[in-house]
Amino acid sequence: MRIAILGTGGVGRALASQFVEHGHEVVLGTRDVAATLSRTTSASSHLPCFADWYAENPLVDLASLPDAASSAPLVVNALEGSHALEGLAEVGAARLAGKILIDTANPLDFSRGRPPFRYLDAHDSLAEQIQRSFPAARVVKTFSTMTTEQMVNPMSVPGLFTVFLSGDDPEAKRVVADLISELGHWDLLDLGDVTTARAPELLLPVWIQLRAALGTSDFNFRVVR
Amino acid sequence: MRIAILGTGGVGRALASQFVEHGHEVVLGTRDVAATLSRTTSASSHLPCFADWYAENPLVDLASLPDAASSAPLVVNALEGSHALEGLAEVGAARLAGKILIDTANPLDFSRGRPPFRYLDAHDSLAEQIQRSFPAARVVKTFSTMTTEQMVNPMSVPGLFTVFLSGDDPEAKRVVADLISELGHWDLLDLGDVTTARAPELLLPVWIQLRAALGTSDFNFRVVR
Repeated sequence: MRIAILGTGGVGRALASQFVEHGHEVVLGTRDVAATLSRTTSASSHLPCFADWYAENPLVDLASLPDAASSAPLVVNALEGSHALEGLAEVGAARLAGKILIDTANPLDFSRGRPPFRYLDAHDSLAEQIQRSFPAARVVKTFSTMTTEQMVNPMSVPGLFTVFLSGDDPEAKRVVADLISELGHWDLLDLGDVTTARAPELLLPVWIQLRAALGTSDFNFRVVR
Repeated sequence: MRIAILGTGGVGRALASQFVEHGHEVVLGTRDVAATLSRTTSASSHLPCFADWYAENPLVDLASLPDAASSAPLVVNALEGSHALEGLAEVGAARLAGKILIDTANPLDFSRGRPPFRYLDAHDSLAEQIQRSFPAARVVKTFSTMTTEQMVNPMSVPGLFTVFLSGDDPEAKRVVADLISELGHWDLLDLGDVTTARAPELLLPVWIQLRAALGTSDFNFRVVR
């Protein structure tokens, strides 16, 4: 399958490498291709600059956000949560219509430093905002409750943890579940329609607090049921 | 050990019965003893009126909030979160000084119906509010992330789930951990000082959303680590 990943940060890169390894065609979408390639630093200090990473991942394409999204039936939102709606607006509703749109982001604002603050109340979610803004997209919320490392290497946590799925379109969720399973995830939990994305999105602030308390990122939650 | 439980609702009653079964002396504290005994209904429709329950639990004492707390070295806050500070103020700081104070409540307001809303921001917790208000009490936050049934019957969830402990006093947490273990809990996680209570308190809104999605209360979270 051809997969467009919007966002060239840690999440976008890690998913791109893994999807390529599993035989998918991947295009990364970015606001400004030339600027992304010419930047000599990354937003996160632990990431190499994009051009270096790109040179080492020759099977990954790079395109503008609209071009990337146009070229694939499945689009992954790997933009920072607070910029997701803006980035998707750049793609445009027409290009997202009918597409499966995986939303991995969290409604967190890092502009005042860490820990970030959640900018939505408990009765809304970023996934719902995206679904409302792009009603013809088939939004599936998933992967928002884990580190980038845990997305692509579930065994980095010493035990099975739960991957949540929320979305209105059962067929879209099935496609996404298959894609996630390929990466080695076993405990998938389909919560229901897109409004159920509130639960995993509310879980992230808990995860952030627990990371501080435990002093490690190598943990996650299993829903025992 | 003699244990004072403040609150005669579902949590207070269930813990009282279980603690008695494990050989502890238990006194329930209530605002107005005569009123509690004369009430013919309960706040929750699934609970019998208190007098009926009390008649069936002859080993449990009943006293005013201050008298109950005065009589035991360990006090359990089983009041509704939004009334906890008020109830504890009725007990008074002097009577709580040096006591282990287990806080099981959540900062949720049910006055506008269900689901309740969390009335604190992410950078505070009810446990911290209690510790700030009663600095000489040895506050231990625990049991706030589960149903009453799960507190006293951990096997009602089909798998091991995590019980969080937060508090500034390691010895108090040790006593509480022993008490919890007696009830059959195995996966105890000491998060650290009282500020770490933010994590379990933020987990409850997630639990509430998941209950709606899963259609059952018989689930909980295990922190895989």
